[in-house]
Amino acid sequence: MTYSYVISIARKPGLSDPEGTTTKKALSDLGFGGVTHVSFGRTISIDVEAESAEAAEPLIEAMCEKLLANPVMERYTIEAAS
Amino acid sequence: MTYSYVISIARKPGLSDPEGTTTKKALSDLGFGGVTHVSFGRTISIDVEAESAEAAEPLIEAMCEKLLANPVMERYTIEAAS
Repeated sequence: MTYSYVISIARKPGLSDPEGTTTKKALSDLGFGGVTHVSFGRTISIDVEAESAEAAEPLIEAMCEKLLANPVMERYTIEAAS
Repeated sequence: MTYSYVISIARKPGLSDPEGTTTKKALSDLGFGGVTHVSFGRTISIDVEAESAEAAEPLIEAMCEKLLANPVMERYTIEAAS
């Protein structure tokens, strides 16, 4: 059976986010003056064939640790998608 | 008052996602053979000063159209964050 997951990845709190800082400045230059904070994250949607959700979830976790996220700088959450 | 929003941006359906295709292959090479689909998206968290939520939401919409998303290739959803 196919199980679908959405992985949300964001920088750990306290790490600088140059993309966010630059975007905040660009928004201000475009006339959007009231923006006080911008930060970026990414999402990865994955469909995986597995015998059960119990078998699929550790696989997704292992994919995050080995390839999809950078555990040094990022934190991630895994959610089952409908 | 400060209002917080999360913008979720993904490619429009039917457009190719080279990052997803490459990641699927990389996962397969790492031994994760059961992956049938991978696609990438991004999220942007924005805090904005505004008089009311009714004033803030059209601002966020305008930011998406002018800078944050590419309406030709991407679709986006805006959600108020807690």
